[in-house]
Amino acid sequence: MQEAFIQSAITIAGREAVLTGDAMTAYCEDWRGRYSGAALAVLFPANTLQVSEIVKLCVANQVAIVPQGGNTSLCGASVPVSQGRQVVLNLSRMNKIRVVDAINYTMTVEAGCKLAALYEAAEQANRLFPLGLTAIAAHCEIGGNLSTNAGGIGVLRYGSARDLVLGLEVVLPDGRIWNGLRSLRKDNTGYDLKQLFLGAEGTLGIITVAVLKLFPRPQSTATACVAVASPEVAVRLLATIRASCGQALSGFEIISRNCLDLVFKHIEDAHEPFKKRYEWYLLIKIDDVQQSSPAEAIRSALLNFGGDVLTFGIACDARQAELWWHLRKNISEAQKLEGVSIKHDISVPVSRVAEFIAEASRVLRNRFVDLRIVAFGHMGDGNIHFNVSLLDAAVNDAFIGQHEIEVNRLVYQVVQKLGGSISAEHGLGQLKRETIRDYKDPLELEMMRTIKHAFDPGNLMNPGKVV
Amino acid sequence: MQEAFIQSAITIAGREAVLTGDAMTAYCEDWRGRYSGAALAVLFPANTLQVSEIVKLCVANQVAIVPQGGNTSLCGASVPVSQGRQVVLNLSRMNKIRVVDAINYTMTVEAGCKLAALYEAAEQANRLFPLGLTAIAAHCEIGGNLSTNAGGIGVLRYGSARDLVLGLEVVLPDGRIWNGLRSLRKDNTGYDLKQLFLGAEGTLGIITVAVLKLFPRPQSTATACVAVASPEVAVRLLATIRASCGQALSGFEIISRNCLDLVFKHIEDAHEPFKKRYEWYLLIKIDDVQQSSPAEAIRSALLNFGGDVLTFGIACDARQAELWWHLRKNISEAQKLEGVSIKHDISVPVSRVAEFIAEASRVLRNRFVDLRIVAFGHMGDGNIHFNVSLLDAAVNDAFIGQHEIEVNRLVYQVVQKLGGSISAEHGLGQLKRETIRDYKDPLELEMMRTIKHAFDPGNLMNPGKVV
Repeated sequence: MQEAFIQSAITIAGREAVLTGDAMTAYCEDWRGRYSGAALAVLFPANTLQVSEIVKLCVANQVAIVPQGGNTSLCGASVPVSQGRQVVLNLSRMNKIRVVDAINYTMTVEAGCKLAALYEAAEQANRLFPLGLTAIAAHCEIGGNLSTNAGGIGVLRYGSARDLVLGLEVVLPDGRIWNGLRSLRKDNTGYDLKQLFLGAEGTLGIITVAVLKLFPRPQSTATACVAVASPEVAVRLLATIRASCGQALSGFEIISRNCLDLVFKHIEDAHEPFKKRYEWYLLIKIDDVQQSSPAEAIRSALLNFGGDVLTFGIACDARQAELWWHLRKNISEAQKLEGVSIKHDISVPVSRVAEFIAEASRVLRNRFVDLRIVAFGHMGDGNIHFNVSLLDAAVNDAFIGQHEIEVNRLVYQVVQKLGGSISAEHGLGQLKRETIRDYKDPLELEMMRTIKHAFDPGNLMNPGKVV
Repeated sequence: MQEAFIQSAITIAGREAVLTGDAMTAYCEDWRGRYSGAALAVLFPANTLQVSEIVKLCVANQVAIVPQGGNTSLCGASVPVSQGRQVVLNLSRMNKIRVVDAINYTMTVEAGCKLAALYEAAEQANRLFPLGLTAIAAHCEIGGNLSTNAGGIGVLRYGSARDLVLGLEVVLPDGRIWNGLRSLRKDNTGYDLKQLFLGAEGTLGIITVAVLKLFPRPQSTATACVAVASPEVAVRLLATIRASCGQALSGFEIISRNCLDLVFKHIEDAHEPFKKRYEWYLLIKIDDVQQSSPAEAIRSALLNFGGDVLTFGIACDARQAELWWHLRKNISEAQKLEGVSIKHDISVPVSRVAEFIAEASRVLRNRFVDLRIVAFGHMGDGNIHFNVSLLDAAVNDAFIGQHEIEVNRLVYQVVQKLGGSISAEHGLGQLKRETIRDYKDPLELEMMRTIKHAFDPGNLMNPGKVV
């Protein structure tokens, strides 16, 4: 059967579009080397019709399908699991930007477009595509961004990937093509079907083409670096800055002292923002399409906030701003150089971020001694990366091996108590597919299975992920 | 059976919560008197548990349920159809604002809250709830706004009702309560179930409580009234103003000459905006949370646009702006006083609005003589109200009686050709449930039925609407 299946795939997509054997390795494991699986073949369809025909071939042969873009998933959603007959369906060849409609502020793009290519196409039309994943944009593809409802640094202002979509084309689990490629701002003619596929991590169908929203390009920008005594002050400052700067506020990141210490230890060209050392730092970014003065807006907001702002600086030139963002961007890298840690990508209501950091830290320190807790992230969205390791590197690996599950449980229980989410922006994939069952209402899990079963009764779309 | 059913309903919700007989009339027909149906009873549950128990009672007795809020639907979605055993489940008693969290920029509200009450609660917390349906806000309820994905004048900046929701509580068609009342900006833990119920017009469950997004309150505002020669110029001007004013642009409405003529004929205190008469007018609104000068921003954008702007004025004081908005707000009323017309609530890509107006007008004038075409609306969203009647009032009624279906078809064919929607903001309800089948991909209709069947296999939730 396998031989005949491969032959049929070649007939559909061409010999160069079908990989087997060792050539498949890079597509069957994730980029961090944490997940790997086996596939009958890796297929590279060139257009939607080929995707459709491949899916029909798989249905006829009861072969499961793992949709794949740039394979930059953090949760193992884009690589095969270890059991079962499956193919990887890689969309990288579908990489055409079909239309950029500057007047409608939209672009129509194929799933395999690199995110960086979309930034560039938007810029050429004097527009902005605001999905803020710059670090990975040269590798990730828009189909994967949409399938995982990717977040990034622009969410506070522009929303997640889901919010940037007007229309989709999707190949359904039976191989039929749904053309929902509308570029309308308003359309109330029944259920909003595209919502099903956004964030579904490829378990309900394969996104092949999308109509995306574009935005005006900011003309002026300012970054402030602010020191505060606690996350509690940061929570209040965020609300105040939103009120006075409105939608011009495009970034609000929090960084704890020990994040900076790690960066200074491991990363070049990293410098203290101020002469004195402080416990908590904020990076606040304001963009404006008008040629106004965002620096003045943020300065006035910070001065009006009063004495709880310990000190601050404002960068108007890109060089100074980049020095500060350099600190933020290198936290993960510095942490990696320091050793492994137990990572959490959680969210709580923005008003409860300080409570989360205090309570989760307290619970962990009650249970374990000599912990290093590294807290930072997209505070503007309530999304905190909260990473835990032992200060003593010599016993850290053993600690993690022994206590990771318990650490997760202690953190997630605080998240749950505060009405939060255990996966704010990375999705479930394989990583949290089991864990989520302990934290989500069983009725909600049942509703997810109801949808899965209604659209993919044979469970051939990315099995072993999400549901 | 009927008597026992009513008794059980009284046991659940109390005697004062159950109307029968003539007392039901106002709840069994819509406010414009176009749709009416019959019900066994009208029920007014006081809380989610009562909603749940009523739904279970209905399921046990195979009685269908029509969820109802302020009953201001324009498409007959909130009143019973004429056949079948059904109850109206009116949520008006569930009208508590549970939480306003100014720091998180959210509020948690029950479905029966009047929209005007939400405006007020947000304002008291120095926040804005931006769903812009001011004309009807004292009557409509948020449950209905969410179930119909309501639009209004703020969509250009803040999105439709769907975009304003972070969490929902829903009573499912089997009576179970789904608590999805999260107030998170980011949550990637599986399918986004709330999307199913938003815009579903009560056919998949009953929204009982919602967590809504709040926004900063604008501190300064300016309205410009602009004359242009054609919708084509308006399309280009919109794109330019978006680029220079960004998210401060909160309204962009188009008004044709004959809209104004009708307003001057029928409405008091309506005055020509300029000394000369022009064919097309735009009302452009800019709001800014900063104490900046939106008037300067819009003036500079209009001056930079060049000679295609025939003339313009800018109102900085509320009185002058209100005189202009008075014209816009009274178009529907003036039209009603003039006589009946065939109304269309359509959308096309913003870049194709001019093409739509030209082409639909051409097609209709080719087929009929002496038509009055009244075109106006939310141009910023590509949403045009395009209404057709005969100039000669004496034969207008007969014309509409004879040709309404053909006029609809001619207009909708142009909409379809331009990739538009035949219901931009009003929904399908009973009004367009049949018509949509001629314009929507059969696969899309099948997907809608798949969802409907998966969640409501007994078809007890608002039957005869949408699907």
